[in-house]
Amino acid sequence: MIGRALIAEFEKLLGRDNVFADEADRHTYSYDAAVLDPVLPALVVRPTSSEGLGRSVRLCGENALPVTVRGAGTNLSGGTIPARGGVVIVTNGLNRILEINEADLYAVVEPGVVTARFAAAVESRGLFYPPDPGSQAVSTLGGNVAENAGGLRGLKYGVTGDYVLGLSFFDANGEIVKTGARTVKCVAGYNLAGLMVGSEGTLGVFDRIILKLIPIPAARKAMLAVFDDIAKACEAVSGIIADKIVPATLELMDNFTIRAVEDYGHAGLPVDAAALLLIEVDGHAAQVEEDASRVEAVCRGRGAMSLRVARTAAERDKVWEARRAALSALAKLKPTVVLEDATVPRSKIPAMMNSLEAIASRYRLTIGTFGHAGDGNLHPTILTDRRDRAEWSRVEAAIDAIFDEALKLGGTLSGEHGIGLAKSRFLEKETSRATILYSRRIKTALDPKNILNPGKIIGE
Amino acid sequence: MIGRALIAEFEKLLGRDNVFADEADRHTYSYDAAVLDPVLPALVVRPTSSEGLGRSVRLCGENALPVTVRGAGTNLSGGTIPARGGVVIVTNGLNRILEINEADLYAVVEPGVVTARFAAAVESRGLFYPPDPGSQAVSTLGGNVAENAGGLRGLKYGVTGDYVLGLSFFDANGEIVKTGARTVKCVAGYNLAGLMVGSEGTLGVFDRIILKLIPIPAARKAMLAVFDDIAKACEAVSGIIADKIVPATLELMDNFTIRAVEDYGHAGLPVDAAALLLIEVDGHAAQVEEDASRVEAVCRGRGAMSLRVARTAAERDKVWEARRAALSALAKLKPTVVLEDATVPRSKIPAMMNSLEAIASRYRLTIGTFGHAGDGNLHPTILTDRRDRAEWSRVEAAIDAIFDEALKLGGTLSGEHGIGLAKSRFLEKETSRATILYSRRIKTALDPKNILNPGKIIGE
Repeated sequence: MIGRALIAEFEKLLGRDNVFADEADRHTYSYDAAVLDPVLPALVVRPTSSEGLGRSVRLCGENALPVTVRGAGTNLSGGTIPARGGVVIVTNGLNRILEINEADLYAVVEPGVVTARFAAAVESRGLFYPPDPGSQAVSTLGGNVAENAGGLRGLKYGVTGDYVLGLSFFDANGEIVKTGARTVKCVAGYNLAGLMVGSEGTLGVFDRIILKLIPIPAARKAMLAVFDDIAKACEAVSGIIADKIVPATLELMDNFTIRAVEDYGHAGLPVDAAALLLIEVDGHAAQVEEDASRVEAVCRGRGAMSLRVARTAAERDKVWEARRAALSALAKLKPTVVLEDATVPRSKIPAMMNSLEAIASRYRLTIGTFGHAGDGNLHPTILTDRRDRAEWSRVEAAIDAIFDEALKLGGTLSGEHGIGLAKSRFLEKETSRATILYSRRIKTALDPKNILNPGKIIGE
Repeated sequence: MIGRALIAEFEKLLGRDNVFADEADRHTYSYDAAVLDPVLPALVVRPTSSEGLGRSVRLCGENALPVTVRGAGTNLSGGTIPARGGVVIVTNGLNRILEINEADLYAVVEPGVVTARFAAAVESRGLFYPPDPGSQAVSTLGGNVAENAGGLRGLKYGVTGDYVLGLSFFDANGEIVKTGARTVKCVAGYNLAGLMVGSEGTLGVFDRIILKLIPIPAARKAMLAVFDDIAKACEAVSGIIADKIVPATLELMDNFTIRAVEDYGHAGLPVDAAALLLIEVDGHAAQVEEDASRVEAVCRGRGAMSLRVARTAAERDKVWEARRAALSALAKLKPTVVLEDATVPRSKIPAMMNSLEAIASRYRLTIGTFGHAGDGNLHPTILTDRRDRAEWSRVEAAIDAIFDEALKLGGTLSGEHGIGLAKSRFLEKETSRATILYSRRIKTALDPKNILNPGKIIGE
């Protein structure tokens, strides 16, 4: 419980309209998109300035109150589930794009800027911010950096962390720390920006973020290849890669996902297809033409039944909207949807698909699979009902099996969803005991009272 | 002093041929390429296996001996100058390329692999490892990661850190820590690989490094533009950028550097030119043609006297060899050469050049300037004689003035040479007191005995 006096202090700092102590208000901030039990925070605050943010962190530090920063709450691993008795800092009052610098190819933003809004603002200047997590329509840049969010363009363009040039953030005492610069090159001190990327709010609270931009590609072409066998689609992925083509996106959907998406959005997808590849190439117009015809040749050579090229921007958008709807579409089918995130070196996609089929059958579960085949980041999606205890224990066993398989194939537990609360107990399996201890030493040194998003990544 | 018994332990561990205790042997490892006083290490050891490396670190930890890891010793900020009474671990016995994976676009290397040898091995497979620090012919990949080395291609391709997918390293106890993966996407735990990049050997000792590779560009074109006024050359740089062309390299040389390079290497550079731009564009053949003609138009529009295109690979190599010789050429002119590394947002290059001229004149110094104009990373090079005390104090004042100017223009103290011993006292000026304290907390937690390259980056 947080006493009335402390609430009054927050109100004085941020204005009464930006402090939420009622249970009904707090309830909204008790969960995120992960399948985990909600935890009610003691207080929710909404700073609207850098100063208000820093002083809020300081106040929490002085009172040893746990702090969980929340953007849009789209986290899939429980990173935004608050600590019991803690404070949630909501960033939607910190949503200014402070600078877009066309000459020097960077932007400076506050953490609460919505990803898609930023991407559009950048594009209107002829520039490009490639990271496009599935939730970009609502997710925030601060959340993207805290999770090192990926998206559909990882293969060619990398992930959020590849675009973070610098940061300022508040440490556990509310003091301002600065790292990185407005330049591509900066080695002035420890790469704290690198450490903050993916640290899930456990090491500091972001104040401002400097993001790298690139010129917008001159041309783009989106294609949809239809397969009657998922193995053939996987071979086409390998074939494209072996041919040293690097598409901007190379997405896979299995039949289960196709049908769910089509039922949900009526995008005109072929519901009888065993698998689809959604491919986009971009760059110089001549390169795009060449890559597109090479991609087509590979797909046909691997037995694609048909290949459709988007003729207009509207057609292209329709394909990508359909893909982006996959999680929502699957989520409608069953009370509980577990979206996994195991990632393997991309040449191991066919092996991983085989294993997923075997796991679904062994544990008698429905697993739809879609994802970023081009960078090895599949999203096997388990449709279940958490209230069905017997099935839920098979789900948990299946998740274990998926992780084991990904690691056996040289991959990782999580490509882009983070460790959060959901996966911290698996982390040692991928790394080492010494890695966990090393990480805990950092956390303890930087946050001795353990107030910054406690329990995430490295456990309690 | 290290006792005979401990030396015997190292000999048992690594073999007698890999332990150097004689003063003459140790002397070679007492300095690097920075203008700083040498420090004689107590012992030099050369592990030839991962196990030998880890056990060497452990032995140093148990005996509280400072450890400085050394690749080729090309460090320009004193990062490889050992601590008094400490051990130097030389990595040239750890020089295996363990894997180059063409399908999954990564390589796994030991830290002692020479950068240029690796780049060539990768290129022979049709792949590309872009980071190309000036010293690449001798520098090692471990050193490049420890310093987050840059090079000529930063503008388009980024720096070493942008290619580190994962790492294993030994902590101060000699325990193995693992971070990152063989995939573009990995958010399993803290981004310790990000933290290790640029940490100058102060937080761990690299065991193996996983590096990202990309397909080799289909075509390249190198050009040399000659100007009769350095301001015009700077304007051409701005013009190329404003035109949203992203060359692979965009290098500037002033007249002083041109003459020094020509005297040194006889590459056929125009010694009367006030400035040269060395430009390379790469990518799809059609894109290269288009970019090259746009670059040419910009240069002529800004008053270039002539523009030469390299017709053959040999001609191209000659241009780049000349550029790479700049530091060696300047170093021959005077007993002491101070190579600075201040970096500004690239649109500020003209302002920075003006300031450098003013500083040279104010402090009555000879400053030659060359560098990576395309990414704002200039290398003003002060030619002096450290034994001349009066001049040396003017040199120190000029360095201060250069840093102040770079920060005023929104830049950084160091783009690619690191902080090391040389710049740690300036770091707070760029960041904040809290940043230094935050960094020290990390260092102290991870290395409580302060054995890992003590004194570097954050001072004692």
